[in-house]
Order: sequence, then structure tokens, then C-alpha cells
Amino acid sequence: MTQIDLNCDLGESFGHYVIGYDEQVLPLITSANVACGFHAGDFSVMHQTVERARKNGVAIGAHPGLPDLKGFGRREMKVSPTEVYDMVVYQIGALQAMTAAQGTRMNHVKPHGALYHMASDQQKIAEAVVQAVVDVNPDLLLFGMDGTFLTEVGEKAGLHVIYEAYADRTYQTDGSLTPRSRPDALITDSDQALAQVLEMIQYGTVTTTTREKAKVRAETICVHGDGTAALAFAETIRRELQDRGITIKAWQ
Amino acid sequence: MTQIDLNCDLGESFGHYVIGYDEQVLPLITSANVACGFHAGDFSVMHQTVERARKNGVAIGAHPGLPDLKGFGRREMKVSPTEVYDMVVYQIGALQAMTAAQGTRMNHVKPHGALYHMASDQQKIAEAVVQAVVDVNPDLLLFGMDGTFLTEVGEKAGLHVIYEAYADRTYQTDGSLTPRSRPDALITDSDQALAQVLEMIQYGTVTTTTREKAKVRAETICVHGDGTAALAFAETIRRELQDRGITIKAWQ
Amino acid sequence: MTQIDLNCDLGESFGHYVIGYDEQVLPLITSANVACGFHAGDFSVMHQTVERARKNGVAIGAHPGLPDLKGFGRREMKVSPTEVYDMVVYQIGALQAMTAAQGTRMNHVKPHGALYHMASDQQKIAEAVVQAVVDVNPDLLLFGMDGTFLTEVGEKAGLHVIYEAYADRTYQTDGSLTPRSRPDALITDSDQALAQVLEMIQYGTVTTTTREKAKVRAETICVHGDGTAALAFAETIRRELQDRGITIKAWQ
Amino acid sequence: MTQIDLNCDLGESFGHYVIGYDEQVLPLITSANVACGFHAGDFSVMHQTVERARKNGVAIGAHPGLPDLKGFGRREMKVSPTEVYDMVVYQIGALQAMTAAQGTRMNHVKPHGALYHMASDQQKIAEAVVQAVVDVNPDLLLFGMDGTFLTEVGEKAGLHVIYEAYADRTYQTDGSLTPRSRPDALITDSDQALAQVLEMIQYGTVTTTTREKAKVRAETICVHGDGTAALAFAETIRRELQDRGITIKAWQ
Repeated sequence: MTQIDLNCDLGESFGHYVIGYDEQVLPLITSANVACGFHAGDFSVMHQTVERARKNGVAIGAHPGLPDLKGFGRREMKVSPTEVYDMVVYQIGALQAMTAAQGTRMNHVKPHGALYHMASDQQKIAEAVVQAVVDVNPDLLLFGMDGTFLTEVGEKAGLHVIYEAYADRTYQTDGSLTPRSRPDALITDSDQALAQVLEMIQYGTVTTTTREKAKVRAETICVHGDGTAALAFAETIRRELQDRGITIKAWQ
Repeated sequence: MTQIDLNCDLGESFGHYVIGYDEQVLPLITSANVACGFHAGDFSVMHQTVERARKNGVAIGAHPGLPDLKGFGRREMKVSPTEVYDMVVYQIGALQAMTAAQGTRMNHVKPHGALYHMASDQQKIAEAVVQAVVDVNPDLLLFGMDGTFLTEVGEKAGLHVIYEAYADRTYQTDGSLTPRSRPDALITDSDQALAQVLEMIQYGTVTTTTREKAKVRAETICVHGDGTAALAFAETIRRELQDRGITIKAWQ
Repeated sequence: MTQIDLNCDLGESFGHYVIGYDEQVLPLITSANVACGFHAGDFSVMHQTVERARKNGVAIGAHPGLPDLKGFGRREMKVSPTEVYDMVVYQIGALQAMTAAQGTRMNHVKPHGALYHMASDQQKIAEAVVQAVVDVNPDLLLFGMDGTFLTEVGEKAGLHVIYEAYADRTYQTDGSLTPRSRPDALITDSDQALAQVLEMIQYGTVTTTTREKAKVRAETICVHGDGTAALAFAETIRRELQDRGITIKAWQ
Repeated sequence: MTQIDLNCDLGESFGHYVIGYDEQVLPLITSANVACGFHAGDFSVMHQTVERARKNGVAIGAHPGLPDLKGFGRREMKVSPTEVYDMVVYQIGALQAMTAAQGTRMNHVKPHGALYHMASDQQKIAEAVVQAVVDVNPDLLLFGMDGTFLTEVGEKAGLHVIYEAYADRTYQTDGSLTPRSRPDALITDSDQALAQVLEMIQYGTVTTTTREKAKVRAETICVHGDGTAALAFAETIRRELQDRGITIKAWQ
């Protein structure tokens, strides 16, 4: 049986500010990456997001980010590994309490934005993130991309790593994502995106921008919920995968 | 055997800003109320404070406050009970993870500043705070003053309530603190403060500003660590209590 | 010639968070109350908002608020008059520089949300706001409601006060707004709202919830830009007033 | 007549957090770089700092920084030139209003911490800072180091640039500061520091770490006020310079 998880960033609203179509995307996904109040989200939004995810039977994960609401956690800051460790412990803890208070539990951790990239590219940041997860709760799954420090360090530390792949991003020969600065970074055609997802799931490969095959591990697919087009696309992926007998389910 | 706990607010520094003499006060106290990043403290300071408390064998408690760094959590904000519930869950969770990551545990919860006063005076705020503690971890002790909604609601909810009393504040006939706006609110003479503490511990009463006796439950005494005078005073109290055979120890 | 100003709160977005239909509302109004980064807005949004207002020939005003992004400046905080004075000076100054940098100027000041209400109801807060305006630039117009401390103190201080009235809120016999807690606080029928505006402009009166007439000074009407219904309504008011030969123009 | 300005970072306290010995350092310096609420300081502290500087006859300058209170503006963030432009306009404006409200005026601008370094090393950031100053008030002096983009771009834009030099930092052959990561970066001996200052002022050179002479322009010397040793050192420099007939005075 082939199994795939569909994850999406959720709970990114803040105070009176609303971002995302959380209600609509929840029925389509199986794992929610919940913002923890640093780059997005706040304690009220977290409560509501955990409640909604729980009611939809969607697995809940922490989505810790850099402390930068203005930049939405998307711009790098010069933070030390120690600071990264502490901010991840803090954010995981806050969400863990939110889930415990509702009689449910947290299932995974996926760093957000610039922190995700920093943990992918820099060994010491990867170690800080991984150590934070290990120290707070080693049973938590760690989401990350194959070929990065994040997943490599996570595996070494004995964490259960779930490999993440992208439906709407192109890949390079070495299996890494094409940088967003390049014109061919994004896949805007939904048929092409679906074909990419199917190839990743069924054959463990991806067709790169140079028309070669690269290996890619795809256990969870990141979908987006920040627009009606994104929602329609998530719906399509979900339906097409189900039609092909692929089980859509969160990993445990 | 008479037992008393000495508690102090700790970990109130923020980034490059330092407040308090944490290192010096830790050997004198038995419970540390650790700021959780809302009114004071940050994730780095929390890490360090938990580490220091642990090394000194001091019990660690969460000191959740209003989200107001500029006001140090001392000014009331119009926050709903739901918001209070969520902000307390969030902050307790963050500290819980900090302690777990260091292989230790959190022992108690004491709301800070304006939140402490709001939870004392307003039933719905008390209920929000208590419910947050119950939902995250009902084994946590709750610190509060006798005769307040906070401790009344806490008892009803089945929490283990630890009654807090003050060495350097005068009391009124009904057992409540003299408001700070009154000239006789503070006790500045250390002999008088010590006498008050001893009366509270040994007889369960306090001599009020009108020279009457009021009942007061004193299981933990709040001392301060924000000045050399405060430190000297805490040292005196500790020594004098020990000399009288009173056991100074955190409640479990 | 009868002249009326139409004002709207603008520039309330923050970082990646978008609130309001600023582009669409700008052609309909004559004065923009620009958020200054405390309750909403940020330095980037302020730049853009000043630019948009300038291009639309809309007068620019500061909309200083309480330092509470999470609460959108709508919940009261216990801030001293001195703090209010300082936060208003700071925010006016920030916007003044933004306008100067674009070769334009600031025309008015209108406190936001809880600060507006506090300045209306509390003399000392009104004095703090007015003094801040006087001290930074006494040529700035002050927006406020008739019968409030804000406008009374503003007049006494020699400021040019512009009286603000509401199209979609009902009034009580004393000329004050019906509190939002009452079911008849809001006018949802656009014909009724238009009739109220016309009565206020043409006769200087308003028909209260008890069907009496109360005096009301209406020199600027507050319209909203946070929904398509609000936009349609602003469009209707503008057109209907123009059709009646009323000049829609900012005061200088 | 030889003239030198002594500048110091001031007003870095925040809420209940106190940093620096502002009261003691003010009689020793002639220019105060006032934090503007982003990396340090708040609107209350700014008011007080402007008042103190004014009473001491010390020239007041804006000290804009990155929006990072936790990091004290000392760590780089990936901010675009446009963001830098906007944050500098905003902060200068806020302080300008603070000075205007007290009947005084702002005299100079000196970027803080990471922003100072970014504006020194990156042409586009330098252009953003300079353009902000030009657009808000081209009469403001710009403080920066010789040989940096900041002063080069400032000169080209027609600003009156004041060249800053350091008493307690060593210099390299190219006239740049020795990086803090190097063991010989700091001068801890006050005689050596004084000698360096005198050489810079009297001969326009500095003796580098390799015992060569490098040209250096020194019109304002940065002193520190964050410790009793720093205060004593500032006092020494001031006295020794005065004894040598050097006029200590802010540039206009």
C-alpha cells in the first residue's frame, strides 16, 4: 500500500489579521503545520487552529519560525544555534500545551520559512533544531527535505524523519529545489504538478529542469492554502491520488 | 514541623537588558517564578534561568503575564477570559518544554503582576487561569493569596493551592493587602517585616494597619531580588526562619 | 456652499498581513487616517499609503493608536497621560517624516480605537493628545466628536477642530453614539444611513433612537473601507451628496 | 582652533529595563545618539533623553536601528534597501517630533549597530540611509566612518558628513577597524586610547595593528556610557583634550 501525507501551513493569522483559508484546506490535508506565535499566529489563533485540526482529524505539528512577524519569518536573521535551539524548544512547548489542553497531541515538527532553509543548509542550525525536538519529545516526527542537513542530522539523532517534497516547485539535478530567483522555479500548470507528484510517489524520482531524473523521497507533500487557486489545486491532487489507490494519511 | 517556601520572580531579563540579581537570590529561595517571554524574559533567558534554578535545587514555576513588555505586565489590559486562558496555556507550555529539555520539571504556576491582580479580583479571569493550569497539567501547584478568587477557584477545581503571603506589604482588616496608593502600604523596616513573617507562619495571623489581627495563610513568602537591599532582606528572613527551626523548602 | 469631508482609516496592513481595500476606497474619500505602526501599519505600509493618498489627492492624517498590534488598538490599556502624550508625539512625527519625504504634508490627527474613546471620555487623556498635537505642529487639524473632552480641550488649546459624525451608527438623546453593546447601535440600511448623513449636514441634527432630534456637528463623515459592502456604501454616500450639490473636500 | 565632538549612544533603556549611565555621561559629551524605539528605547525614554540632552546643552541626533529589540539591533537581518529607507525615515521622524515638542531640534543622524555596519559595507544600504536623511531633512549631519559607503554616498548626496573615529578600537592598514573577532580589536589601556585619539585629531593618522600609519578623519569620537570604566575613560579623554586646548563641541 502506498501512503502519502499532505501537509499545509496553518494558523498564520494574527490578532485581527487573517491569512489563509484554513477552514477550507483542512478537509483536504492530513497534517497541519501550526504557526507558534513567532513569525505568525498568536495564542488565540493557535487554540482555534488546534481545535479545527482536531475536529477534522488532521495531525497537528509545530511550525516554529524566526521571531519576525513583520517579515513573516521569511528573511534570514543572524541567530546563533543556541538561540535557534531555545526558540524551537519554546515554540514546540507552547503548541504542545495547546494540544494537551484539548486532549490531543502534537505529531510532528516542521521549521518555517527562513528557519527551514537555514536548518537545511547549515549543519549547526540543523543540529540545534534536531536537538530541540529530541530534548522536548523524541517521539515527534521531523519534516524535512532529502539531501539536507536537517534530515541527515535528524536521522543520525534517531528521529523519525518524514521526507517532504513539493508539487509546485521544480527540482535540479542534485535533487534540490530550483531557487525562486530562477524563472523556472515554479510549476504553475496543475497537470505538470500532478505528474510530478505521481512520479515522486510511484517511482521515487523527479524530472529535473534539465529533463534528467533525480532521486527524491516523498512521504509528505506540501500544499498551500493561501488562495482559491491553491485550494483547487490541493483538491485536485487529493482526488487524483485517491483515484489511483494511494492512501492519504498522516504518518505516526 | 513547620515548613515554608520562599519564592521570587526570576528570569526577567530580556535580550541585552538585565533586571534582577538572579544568581545571588537563587541560593536564598526555594521556588523561582520564571517569566515566560510575555511581560519579561525571552527564550534565551528562560533557558538560562531554568538551568540556574536546577543547579541550585530551586523549584521552577511558570510566571505567566500579560503580553506587554513595555509595561512589564504591570498595567491592566482589557483581555477576555478566553485570551487569558490561551496566553496562560501558551506560556506554561513554553516553560514546561524548557524544563523537560533539561530533564527537570515545572512545579508551580503563579500569575504575574496585573494578571495576578486580575485573577485575584475577577472570578472569570481566575477561572481562565485555573482552567489553563488544569488542562495543561493538573499536578502543578497554584500560588495565590487567601481570600481571592484565584485560590478559591483553584481549590474548587481540585488544584493543590499554595497560599502566598508578603513580608514587605501591610495588610488590612479583611486580610487583603493595603493598596500601593496608600502611604502605609509598604514595610521598609526589616525587623517589622520579619516579625510579620514569623507571626504569619507561627500563628496564622497578621497585625493589620489598624492594629487588629487578621487571619492569613502563609505557605510561601514572596521575596524580591531586584536590589542589594532586597537581597540582604531575603538573606535575613531565610536565616532567622532557619534559626527558629522552620524548614525552608518548596512544596511538592 | 456646504462642504463635507469623508474620512477613512487606511494603511492598516502589517508585513504580509493585508487589511482593507485601500486602493478602492481612496477615490471615494478626501481624508485618510493613516495607521502609524502601533496598533496597525508599519513603516513600509505607511510609505505606500502616503504615496497612494498623495496620488489620489487625498489629505493625509495621522491615526495614532495604543501600542497593541494583537488587539488592533481596540482594547483599553492603563496608560498614563504622559505615556499617551509621548506615543502620540512619536507617531505623528513618524508620519510627518513620511509625508515630508514625499514632498507632501500631514493635514490632521485622529486618535484610533481605544485611544479615541479614552480621549473622548477622559479629560487628562484628551489633554495629553491635544498637547502632543499642539507641541508637534499646531497647524494640524484635530478630528473628534462634538460633546467630547477631545474636541472641547482641542478648541480651548486653539486647535482647528473638525467635528466628526458617523453614517452607520445611531445616536442617543445627548448626542452621543449608542454603545455597540446595544442591538440598535448600528445602521445597516443604507437609505437610513444616507438620510442621517443628509440631516446632519443640512440641519445640524440627528434623529435619535428615541425619535427625538439631537444637535450634532458634522464636518467630516467617517466611512469604512474594510469590505465590499462598506465600499459600495461609501460610493453611495459620495454620489448622493454630490448630487445634492454638497462639496466633498478635505478641510485645510 | 582644533574642534572635536564627543558622541555617545543614549536613551537605550526600554520600559522597566535600564541600560547605560545617561545622566552621568551627558556632562561629558557633546552629541547624543538617541535610540528611536526599534533596537532600543521607547517613546517615554526618548522624551526623557531629549529633555536631559537639552538641559545639558548636548546636541541631539537620531540613532535609527533595525527592528530587533531582542538582538539590540546588533545582528544583521535581510532587509531590503526600501525597508531600510522607510525604517530610517520613520525613526528620524519620531525623534524629530520629540525634539520639536520640546522646542529644540535634531542635529545629526548616526545609524546603529548592524545598520551602521550594513550602511558602511553595502552601497545600496548606504544609499537608502542617505536618501532617507536627504528626504526628511537635508540639513541633518550624517555621522559615519571615512572609507565607507555611508560617508562616500553621503558626501555625493551633498550631506554634511561628520567623520567618526574610535578611541577604544584598533585600526588596520586600510583605515578600517580591526574586526571584533580578532584578539587585538579592542584597546583596553586608557593611555593607549588617549594617544590614539590625540594622533587622530592632531595628525589625521592612526597607528595600525601592524605599526604602520593610516590616514583617518576624526571629527567626532565615539565614547561609551555603559559602565563605570567607560565613564571614567570618557572623563579622561575629555579632560586631556581640553588641557591640550582642543575645543570639544558639537558640529552644526
